[in-house]
Amino acid sequence: MATTFQAPPGTRDFYPDQMALRRYVEDTWRRVSLRHGFLEVDGPTFEFLDLYKVKSGDEIVSQLFHFESREDKSGNTEAFALRPEFTPTLARMVAAKAHALPRPIKWFSLPRCYRAERQQKGRLKEFFQWNVDMLGGDTPEARAQFDAEVAILCLDCLREFGLSPDEVKLRWNDRHNVETWFDLADIPEAKWPAAYSLLDRIRKISPDDRKRIYTEQGFEGGAQRLFEQIADNSNPLAPEFWKYDQLDDAKKQKFQTVVVKAMTFHTYLRFAGLERYGQAEPDPSIVRGLAYYTGFVWEISDTRGEHRAIAGGGRYDKLIEMFGGPTLPATGFGMGDVVLANLLQERGLLPKDLGRGTAPDVFIVNALPRPEPALKLIGELRAAKLVVATSYKTTKNIGKLLQDAAASSARHALILAPAEWYKPGGPLVKLKNLATREERELPLPEAMTALKARA
Amino acid sequence: MATTFQAPPGTRDFYPDQMALRRYVEDTWRRVSLRHGFLEVDGPTFEFLDLYKVKSGDEIVSQLFHFESREDKSGNTEAFALRPEFTPTLARMVAAKAHALPRPIKWFSLPRCYRAERQQKGRLKEFFQWNVDMLGGDTPEARAQFDAEVAILCLDCLREFGLSPDEVKLRWNDRHNVETWFDLADIPEAKWPAAYSLLDRIRKISPDDRKRIYTEQGFEGGAQRLFEQIADNSNPLAPEFWKYDQLDDAKKQKFQTVVVKAMTFHTYLRFAGLERYGQAEPDPSIVRGLAYYTGFVWEISDTRGEHRAIAGGGRYDKLIEMFGGPTLPATGFGMGDVVLANLLQERGLLPKDLGRGTAPDVFIVNALPRPEPALKLIGELRAAKLVVATSYKTTKNIGKLLQDAAASSARHALILAPAEWYKPGGPLVKLKNLATREERELPLPEAMTALKARA
Repeated sequence: MATTFQAPPGTRDFYPDQMALRRYVEDTWRRVSLRHGFLEVDGPTFEFLDLYKVKSGDEIVSQLFHFESREDKSGNTEAFALRPEFTPTLARMVAAKAHALPRPIKWFSLPRCYRAERQQKGRLKEFFQWNVDMLGGDTPEARAQFDAEVAILCLDCLREFGLSPDEVKLRWNDRHNVETWFDLADIPEAKWPAAYSLLDRIRKISPDDRKRIYTEQGFEGGAQRLFEQIADNSNPLAPEFWKYDQLDDAKKQKFQTVVVKAMTFHTYLRFAGLERYGQAEPDPSIVRGLAYYTGFVWEISDTRGEHRAIAGGGRYDKLIEMFGGPTLPATGFGMGDVVLANLLQERGLLPKDLGRGTAPDVFIVNALPRPEPALKLIGELRAAKLVVATSYKTTKNIGKLLQDAAASSARHALILAPAEWYKPGGPLVKLKNLATREERELPLPEAMTALKARA
Repeated sequence: MATTFQAPPGTRDFYPDQMALRRYVEDTWRRVSLRHGFLEVDGPTFEFLDLYKVKSGDEIVSQLFHFESREDKSGNTEAFALRPEFTPTLARMVAAKAHALPRPIKWFSLPRCYRAERQQKGRLKEFFQWNVDMLGGDTPEARAQFDAEVAILCLDCLREFGLSPDEVKLRWNDRHNVETWFDLADIPEAKWPAAYSLLDRIRKISPDDRKRIYTEQGFEGGAQRLFEQIADNSNPLAPEFWKYDQLDDAKKQKFQTVVVKAMTFHTYLRFAGLERYGQAEPDPSIVRGLAYYTGFVWEISDTRGEHRAIAGGGRYDKLIEMFGGPTLPATGFGMGDVVLANLLQERGLLPKDLGRGTAPDVFIVNALPRPEPALKLIGELRAAKLVVATSYKTTKNIGKLLQDAAASSARHALILAPAEWYKPGGPLVKLKNLATREERELPLPEAMTALKARA
């Protein structure tokens, strides 16, 4: 029975301090999303198991928590799974109402998600994710703008958390750029999947192993030069790398297109005042899910490289069709709460007063022999929507009670003491401003009026 | 595949309108909880299956969605269940840190909960619940005050939603009162479980069936009179019912205790200005979970009787011990989102502007031939934390764009038109207050300064 009384491994108990941190992250995600004109949505925590196979195939099942419904009258059950991500739900919801929704669709969500995996640093079985999606865009220009718009929202939010461009960096790439490079490097289309897979891990492979792979997979001169350039963290956007002057006109044209695309994204970041957060040039090693993303892809990570990626996103123009909807271009990203919170904590960027609850407008110090007068005042002040705190201690020692008031971070203390309360001419009270320590003695109705006016 | 693309039955998709309603309910629950000095907590969405058997026995399993973890290295799995309620998690969390937590513990939570049942009106497979718990209280007086404090929070919140005492009513009872009545009516203790079970449904049983049950279960003279009184909606607190003058001294004493208890609760409601929401006298037909509650119990329902109970709670002093913790008196309640939202919708009490997102501080009307200047202004204003909207339409027709601005409920429109923008002496813009329709032409920097000052 002992383990019964613990949280399942890989999940979290949110005591007031942890809960306040979670709300701080969620509230910031929400506030910045709304500032950029996105509307909040959500779906069920669990979906039909089959929904997750649409995007990710049958192999996803082993990574899901799944369960059966109770038997219906005919003895049938249905298979459900806890959501590992929000995208299939979003796609289903958009597909169902695609024609009724105003375009562009600008949605965000803050779903709780689940992974049936062993937990590691920055990865839990249960976590929260900020999802942002922007759907629509009839022209390539509009789509480029939307790609930038969601990345800008993401960076603006990291800035709001206090993270500087020295601490986090957005690296991006474009599937079409990469294919242009493959083309310029004379890699035949049949070898592109192998080339992508190699790019995805190229900076983690030793030079000797790279040579072996080139031989095994038949990557020759131009291809090898391209891969070595990328492995070396050098960018293949340099004209001299391609011997630009020697290219034929068709290839010159392709190269120019890539350069213009690269400039476009960074220009948008510059307009938003966020250019220092993003690399100016594409990073060819950013590949991400091949089956899912269709063009622009990006990732944000900490510049010290100590954490998993903070956020990742890109363009997935085929998603809505895949879920039974119309053709609808789409771009977006996801950001988990675990890596972000670890990073903020490490960098000392969390507000210091988390977990205290809302600071009270007033703390009632009751030194009267009976509780009734204080309870009435508390009821009246709460009805006026003030945040009211009091002590549950039985002491009538005003000094001790004022210590509790100060500890609660209340703005004012309202002190009910027998000497003033029972004076002829109606009750008098003391109203103390706990910041300035200024204290006034005044008739109760005046004190109540002052408090209700939040003076 | 068709059903795959639908939400599982008994769950909900939250498009922006539904999501805004959900946030409105959650935000109100949270705001009022904080106002009353409660701190927010949460736990995992799923727990070890066994945790739910502690409070509810093995029969709970058929009402849960449960699943197995992946096999560990030794091929073992563990059984988990989606939470049907928050209380077992709360009890586990309190028990684990009972000695470190400041008393009284005043916690609330807004968990998403799950029931493996067929959905009915007001009951879904997946729903949200507002949970409030107050633990501690060394004296009977403190415990009576805490019982009242959580009920007062609940009623204050319903008042905040706009529900009047004519629309919702709190009915309450006390297990000790009922046992005093059983005693006064000479029902032997061995028959109390049967008597409770009868009370719980007495107003739904026909007079003939009641007579049959009395005979079958051996309830005689005094017991029959008590049950008939309660079935008739009459309160057994009337001294004449008990022929008070003819009672012996011990029974007179017991009767007085019940009357004092009844007065106490209503007095607390009166102090809080909420007396019209609560019945002054106990309602003997309020029984609630016998195995769980240990004294005071209550329910809030709509006065027309058209819905399931809106909220229910009471005192459960044995809970924390049951979960391996110390003896710790506890009282609290739960309120679901489904019945509440149905009721608010029916009564026309929902705010009219839900689902629009945050009203923008400013809507940029861009009639310039290029997007860049507008994008720069948007970036600058969002960096100053203003909520900024714009149109994605390609039209440069200022009238049409101003219609979009008005539809967005923005406070101001900032109009960029070629005629003013390209004037010698720097760009001029128009700033229009969309409420007063007042419009000013002014240099761009002045307009930006005015907007950032939220003038």
